[in-house]
Amino acid sequence: MDNIQSLKGFRDLGPEEASQREKVLGKIRAVFQRYGFLPLETPALEYKEILTGKYGAEGDKLLYSFKDQGGRDVAMRYDLTVPLARFVASNQDLAMPFKRYQIAPVWRADRPQKGRYREFVQCDVDVVGSDSIFADAEIIACMNTALKELGIPEVLIKINNRKVLNGMMRAAKIEVKKTTAAIRSLDKLEKIGEDEVRGELASAGIQAKQADALFEMLGQALEDPKDVLSKLDGIDGAGELAELLEILLDMGVKNYQVDLTLARGLEYYTGSIFEFVLPDAREFGSVAGGGRYDNLIGMFSTPPSSPPKLGGEGRGIPAVGASIGIDRLTSALEELELVKFDSVSDVLVCNLEEDLDEKYLQIVQDLRGAGIKTDFYYEAAKLDKQLKYANKKNIDFAVLIGPDEAKKDEATVKNMKTGKQEKVKQKDLIRKLKP
Amino acid sequence: MDNIQSLKGFRDLGPEEASQREKVLGKIRAVFQRYGFLPLETPALEYKEILTGKYGAEGDKLLYSFKDQGGRDVAMRYDLTVPLARFVASNQDLAMPFKRYQIAPVWRADRPQKGRYREFVQCDVDVVGSDSIFADAEIIACMNTALKELGIPEVLIKINNRKVLNGMMRAAKIEVKKTTAAIRSLDKLEKIGEDEVRGELASAGIQAKQADALFEMLGQALEDPKDVLSKLDGIDGAGELAELLEILLDMGVKNYQVDLTLARGLEYYTGSIFEFVLPDAREFGSVAGGGRYDNLIGMFSTPPSSPPKLGGEGRGIPAVGASIGIDRLTSALEELELVKFDSVSDVLVCNLEEDLDEKYLQIVQDLRGAGIKTDFYYEAAKLDKQLKYANKKNIDFAVLIGPDEAKKDEATVKNMKTGKQEKVKQKDLIRKLKP
Repeated sequence: MDNIQSLKGFRDLGPEEASQREKVLGKIRAVFQRYGFLPLETPALEYKEILTGKYGAEGDKLLYSFKDQGGRDVAMRYDLTVPLARFVASNQDLAMPFKRYQIAPVWRADRPQKGRYREFVQCDVDVVGSDSIFADAEIIACMNTALKELGIPEVLIKINNRKVLNGMMRAAKIEVKKTTAAIRSLDKLEKIGEDEVRGELASAGIQAKQADALFEMLGQALEDPKDVLSKLDGIDGAGELAELLEILLDMGVKNYQVDLTLARGLEYYTGSIFEFVLPDAREFGSVAGGGRYDNLIGMFSTPPSSPPKLGGEGRGIPAVGASIGIDRLTSALEELELVKFDSVSDVLVCNLEEDLDEKYLQIVQDLRGAGIKTDFYYEAAKLDKQLKYANKKNIDFAVLIGPDEAKKDEATVKNMKTGKQEKVKQKDLIRKLKP
Repeated sequence: MDNIQSLKGFRDLGPEEASQREKVLGKIRAVFQRYGFLPLETPALEYKEILTGKYGAEGDKLLYSFKDQGGRDVAMRYDLTVPLARFVASNQDLAMPFKRYQIAPVWRADRPQKGRYREFVQCDVDVVGSDSIFADAEIIACMNTALKELGIPEVLIKINNRKVLNGMMRAAKIEVKKTTAAIRSLDKLEKIGEDEVRGELASAGIQAKQADALFEMLGQALEDPKDVLSKLDGIDGAGELAELLEILLDMGVKNYQVDLTLARGLEYYTGSIFEFVLPDAREFGSVAGGGRYDNLIGMFSTPPSSPPKLGGEGRGIPAVGASIGIDRLTSALEELELVKFDSVSDVLVCNLEEDLDEKYLQIVQDLRGAGIKTDFYYEAAKLDKQLKYANKKNIDFAVLIGPDEAKKDEATVKNMKTGKQEKVKQKDLIRKLKP
């Protein structure tokens, strides 16, 4: 027999997992729409030159790229942001701000790990063309609502601002060329602890005095946000951060925390940055995150002197956005027992008598017409076999009509979970079975 | 400026097209579920050897295939049927019959034409593991319901049976080696007419007498189905066809026609074949189609003596299925004016006074909480500009709250389509705006 495996890092989603994913995505999509975001779809394949140089040298290596039949260099979508930038550049007449969502798989030839795949679905919302802090707040509120609608009881939003990070570096008198290293080390504080971070800072040539200054500012990071902000008085970006927090409160979003160590995707964020963690499932890390990136979307839109690259060219089209990693989120939801693999069909109409086919089919079609997910057992097989099928498919109810029931226009409804049976009139089946 | 084009044969779906597609797919998906089909998701990339040799030499050429970073030969999904076969082979404990749907893009490096793309979405339903004619009927009824739920007033189902086609060839005493050519020619009858078909048959070495016999049987093809069947008495497969038609009637499906010239994908169908056409938009050809293919799904499941290929190996897992071509269907729906590019957001809350931000945000969040798709204009820009944005985004209502309204807890609701304005209490906004 030939190889019948799927590729390493790729996987099938069988009926239960796929149903669950459809439900989760359906809820997320509905929230995105309620926040006024509109869908966008872009191709799986792009010209390779559109994608290369946008994700760093490491990212370029992870691109699935090849020559197509026409000799064109093409590559599979690596994220949803660069295609958005291309779309904006090639559609000059979009109503701005352009608020779009896109839910689609992306492909990265990364080393597969537990819970990390080479094909995974991203759910992105972005506001393009506005530098208003309301846009930042709206993105955060939208993601927060999406996570809450999935039934997650506790969501924590960690918020920081890239300008504040830079401002802190200046306040601690850390030289500009060392700030990237310092910010990267700070980002690990929660994971590796203060001592190790201080060690890393020292290795990066940052003096103990400078590190002390940083840690004094950070000392407030896990306290009341108002306190943090008062300590930041005079630091660049602190006003913007404070404004964001206030707007969030106006929007009814209270479950946030300022985390001055949060750095995230340092390369291209320019303002607000934020991550969503689930305190009850912290081991999954952040399930969503994003920030403001004012130098990225325009990269294809302004004539660059050099080829467009992330954070390089394209000033002039401000943007803010966030992304949910649906695979990680699903794992967390499973851990929290917030997704049930519930039944995907509601009813199985059993096939007990060949002579009653016409009756069965009529009932099957009536139930379906009423919106009830209905399966019909094709063969007049032994009842046992049919009920086993219903169980295996996790079907809630079996409808049994034998010659006796047929004569009286009745049906026996068997609850597959409890085993209980009851006789009902056939005309009452819809009312009885409607979920 | 760099190339900012998408690839030839690929395209973006902007907000309006993408919204419309989401709605269409949502309706189709709901019908699939009501018929007891469960979702399946398979990867975009497969081992190349899984896909090659399954679609004929022509198909192999159209595969997007390449070597990945690990040196593996991989290829992009060409259809949803071969991945289904692989899934069935690698999941031996599936409850049979396995009824699955899959809605996903596939990729073919075909010559792009009007309405034909290199990336297109297929919507497939298949019943695997049952040779019951009920399965054939269920597939047809399911597709028929899906098309009707899209609001298409008239759908015509053309039905034939591969066994009947072969039986007719035998009845007309056409040699087995000439039947493929003969069936291919017959398939073109509607398009090219009897004279040309007779010409083709003659070129294929079929005698005029044999052609006469065929056309006598076909003479009935466009008449009442019962008549057609009576003419086919004694022809192999006619009984099966008759049974299918009867079951369809039992299921309330009456909009079919026997079309004895219908051949479709001759290579692998083994029984029922069918196509859905829209009489009001015939130029789009069939918008959906399918059939029974009992030798395909098992190709990875039974130890083949030679490499698995379509219709070659794999007897033992009967299957029947159908597919909707969503791009062609969408074009047809547009032609029939059955899809409106209706508004994707319901409401824009305008930003008239910076001091009223808090009030605006609270209303925005209340409306969203009530399930109303609500957009907020971030800047306190000129009203004109904000209304222009609402128009461009095809938003139904603008909510205006200036200082006067604010004092009285009122809001002005402007119907963007009619221009009419009315004052309502803020607390009545949800009731007023709920679609």
